[in-house]
Amino acid sequence: MAQVKSDIEIAREASWKPIQEIGAKLDIPEEHLLPFGHDKAKISSQFISSLADRKNGKLILVTAINPTPAGEGKTTTTIGLGDALNRIGKKAIVCVREPSLGPSFGMKGGAAGGGYSQVIPMEDINLHFTGDFHAITSAHNLLSALIDNHVHWGNSLGIDTRRITWRRVMDMNDRALRDIVAGLGTGNGFPRETGFDITVASEIMAILCLARDLHDLEQRLGNIIIGYRFDKTPVYARDLKADGAMAVLLRQALQPNLVQTIENNPAFVHGGPFANIAHGCNSVIATSTALKLADYVVTEAGFGADLGAEKFFDIKCRKAGLKPAAAVIVATIRALKMNGGVKKEDLGTENVKAVLAGCPNLGRHIENVKQFGVPLVVAINHFHSDTDAEVEAVRNYVATLGGEAIVCSHWANGSAGAVELAEKVAALAEGGASNFAPLYVDDMPLLEKMETVVKRIYRGAGVVASDTIQAQLKRWEEEGYGKLPVCMAKTPYSFSADPTVLGAPTGHVIPIREVRLSAGAGFVVAICGDLMTMPGLPRVPAAERIFLSPDGYVEGLS
Amino acid sequence: MAQVKSDIEIAREASWKPIQEIGAKLDIPEEHLLPFGHDKAKISSQFISSLADRKNGKLILVTAINPTPAGEGKTTTTIGLGDALNRIGKKAIVCVREPSLGPSFGMKGGAAGGGYSQVIPMEDINLHFTGDFHAITSAHNLLSALIDNHVHWGNSLGIDTRRITWRRVMDMNDRALRDIVAGLGTGNGFPRETGFDITVASEIMAILCLARDLHDLEQRLGNIIIGYRFDKTPVYARDLKADGAMAVLLRQALQPNLVQTIENNPAFVHGGPFANIAHGCNSVIATSTALKLADYVVTEAGFGADLGAEKFFDIKCRKAGLKPAAAVIVATIRALKMNGGVKKEDLGTENVKAVLAGCPNLGRHIENVKQFGVPLVVAINHFHSDTDAEVEAVRNYVATLGGEAIVCSHWANGSAGAVELAEKVAALAEGGASNFAPLYVDDMPLLEKMETVVKRIYRGAGVVASDTIQAQLKRWEEEGYGKLPVCMAKTPYSFSADPTVLGAPTGHVIPIREVRLSAGAGFVVAICGDLMTMPGLPRVPAAERIFLSPDGYVEGLS
Repeated sequence: MAQVKSDIEIAREASWKPIQEIGAKLDIPEEHLLPFGHDKAKISSQFISSLADRKNGKLILVTAINPTPAGEGKTTTTIGLGDALNRIGKKAIVCVREPSLGPSFGMKGGAAGGGYSQVIPMEDINLHFTGDFHAITSAHNLLSALIDNHVHWGNSLGIDTRRITWRRVMDMNDRALRDIVAGLGTGNGFPRETGFDITVASEIMAILCLARDLHDLEQRLGNIIIGYRFDKTPVYARDLKADGAMAVLLRQALQPNLVQTIENNPAFVHGGPFANIAHGCNSVIATSTALKLADYVVTEAGFGADLGAEKFFDIKCRKAGLKPAAAVIVATIRALKMNGGVKKEDLGTENVKAVLAGCPNLGRHIENVKQFGVPLVVAINHFHSDTDAEVEAVRNYVATLGGEAIVCSHWANGSAGAVELAEKVAALAEGGASNFAPLYVDDMPLLEKMETVVKRIYRGAGVVASDTIQAQLKRWEEEGYGKLPVCMAKTPYSFSADPTVLGAPTGHVIPIREVRLSAGAGFVVAICGDLMTMPGLPRVPAAERIFLSPDGYVEGLS
Repeated sequence: MAQVKSDIEIAREASWKPIQEIGAKLDIPEEHLLPFGHDKAKISSQFISSLADRKNGKLILVTAINPTPAGEGKTTTTIGLGDALNRIGKKAIVCVREPSLGPSFGMKGGAAGGGYSQVIPMEDINLHFTGDFHAITSAHNLLSALIDNHVHWGNSLGIDTRRITWRRVMDMNDRALRDIVAGLGTGNGFPRETGFDITVASEIMAILCLARDLHDLEQRLGNIIIGYRFDKTPVYARDLKADGAMAVLLRQALQPNLVQTIENNPAFVHGGPFANIAHGCNSVIATSTALKLADYVVTEAGFGADLGAEKFFDIKCRKAGLKPAAAVIVATIRALKMNGGVKKEDLGTENVKAVLAGCPNLGRHIENVKQFGVPLVVAINHFHSDTDAEVEAVRNYVATLGGEAIVCSHWANGSAGAVELAEKVAALAEGGASNFAPLYVDDMPLLEKMETVVKRIYRGAGVVASDTIQAQLKRWEEEGYGKLPVCMAKTPYSFSADPTVLGAPTGHVIPIREVRLSAGAGFVVAICGDLMTMPGLPRVPAAERIFLSPDGYVEGLS
């Protein structure tokens, strides 16, 4: 392929429209669009409230096989499908997550789709955007400061400073802040061990993405458990009177961000919680608002379907009362080959056998999504090195499961490359075949919920949890947290807890190493492996290559 | 006084105009206004560049006597004077500093003027505003992360980790972060002592406020000294290839923010560096742009005239080539009484003798401003408890110095309360009496510059500096930093180094405890006392009283 343009070049050449024009496509009056520059806007809370009685459009989930270094293109497919639905005459909105600023300076450039399926303005979306993540950082760290300040001034709440679980956050890859001792020196409070997570790992991010409105947001903020007293009883953010000020800091961040795709179709880019210790979906308020404004809303979940779609269904949809009409599982020939045992450097060579060896990973995800009662189609996100034989192998494999796999070339061709997919998705959604239900009922005990996910989604033999962990879960159930869904923090690379076991393993045991209660967000996190909540920068960070060109363009973001 | 409205109530009741209308008053085309909501906008770099050949308007500095707990109202007077100049038919723009978010949750509420002389939207300006401070925080902490990352991956630059002077920043009052040990645990870099300052104390804030354009900004960012090698040679941000990415993070923050006063006159609210370790003025780019767009530009400096006006003249005006046409020195009867020895609780009682006893503080500032060749007027910012006799005493005192003191009631009455002041300021400025020159020439040795400020402005006997400090200054002179201006970090409460010595002391010695080179900002800081670069929260933080009302208003900010 000669002269492939970079994402940022394509984005820059896109002919964007004023955001008011994009809003007008959705009948949003100008006064209810809070502009950020000429190409971004937040949608006013009043306008969102006014939509309550409208009928919902159809919700389409885009998920994927287990991620590999080959890349799958979930966000790109979400955007391409949205554009293609608009192309075939459906009114569609894309709902994707906001990228985190910090990682843009680390390994990768941006994360706003790719090729001819992007949301723009790409540079802004990847950097400060409309300030949502900065607001989350501020609200989080205000609570942190209030905790240490409370202890400094006498600790009338009796907080056990060894058991403060609330850390600080920063939207930066900064490994030196993972473990720190703060409060050193005289007059600076009391020294204690603590640390920083990256902002997207903040419980406030998860709260913002699950809150229905400002009132619900403030309630959830107050429910945050920041640590424990000497008698082991929890201390809430509400006890520190932090909830009001935090809600003030977040009031604008809660409003969904409207931008456009390269093809000038509306896109909501809002929220971006971790897909391990949180649920990994864009905000409920963005998705719900989009459903009131369009016939089709295409949204994505984090990682592969085992982690991402499961949480989308069991946490987001359950909590927000959403009923997905259809799902798309994205796969690439290259990623299937890796699942079939091929090394990254050998991906350019045709290898039908390896593709077929990797297909059971896809098959497992297909079965899993069906368990939730949601009809689906497989999208093969085309890469130029894919051969016809490889593609045919996947199509045949999916057909044997009673499904359909459609090749898409939206990366190279925009919406024109995803028309067949869009038509299939529309047919599925309009067919009314969806009979969505979460995997487990609220009333199931917490450990049993974890067992259910492990057995039915990961196809493992079960969980292993120590007596201490089991006692902790029992205590939470007694305290009234038993009806919460569980949020599995497991490696995204495998159905097992071992990231090197690709394909479709069975019989593995999932060790629950730790459990955490996210009382504000409203779920119980089961940590089943190493958990990285503050990334580091690589030896040669992307930051070294990012600069402003003499004409003011951002170079090096992708 | 019955039923005094709070600042936030007054601000909320103001009838604001769309920011495009405010821009239109300055002939800024809509496409060059980057809106943030309907009431805030950034001015495009292209538009600013297009103004280069225009004539400058007249620059008016608003400064004050030494600050006391009684309050002086410098920002309020700046805004009131701007409105009054517009009222008498002059085209005027107000240029003030952006308040810091963190302190809003500490002792005080907001900082956007007061009463009927405010800039709006007050809540936004006091919170995230247009994200400038968040961008500075990100750029600062990106550099911090790159430093520790460089050491982690082998430290090829040979940085002496004990001599890394670049800390981290957060826009929050968080004393627990003043002194920390970071990099603990395995794989998280190398442990070392460091800490956080509040964002406004970042050298990047000073850089942003002194940069002429994006190119100059990037150069200055590269010039930042982050620490020293084992051989004591400096390590620059440029050595870490951090300057490009930092400039990218700051490119929008560099654009001035346009808002409006309560009376719908244009105001630029942009930048807000510390007035001790930095120069304490709003941005050069905002002031310079305003001068191209209006006949009068009214701006403020930090603290009292000894620290604030001196730095405005010797750092900002010198570096940006600005020539102030007139100055206003703000005083209040209450603050003069405190300078005359009255305690805060006794300020409500008439006390002409105490007022007169405090007047020499005002007199000293009058003489000092005159030394710079700038004609001035005194503004007595009226408070309801002031008596006629007290006011008359000040007017007479100022008259004996050949000057004029004018009573203003803009806090209570808006522009109508500052018409006389505006007329006097216009007369002074149009009289052409200004013959501005900085206090010292570039070529003077650094220690002598400090001596000059101490003797001529603080009226002290001189400085005391250890041999080590003197050797350090000599070394910087040899390295080419000798032509930089000096930035005195001294208590703002006294002409001396002792904050309890009010009035107009003489003969005191100013100890230089430490010197710091801000090579990016372009000045040498002389630290002459305790320096607090990260505030703490009080026993009962304002955060506890800040919340959203059911109708979505921010309560408790002021």
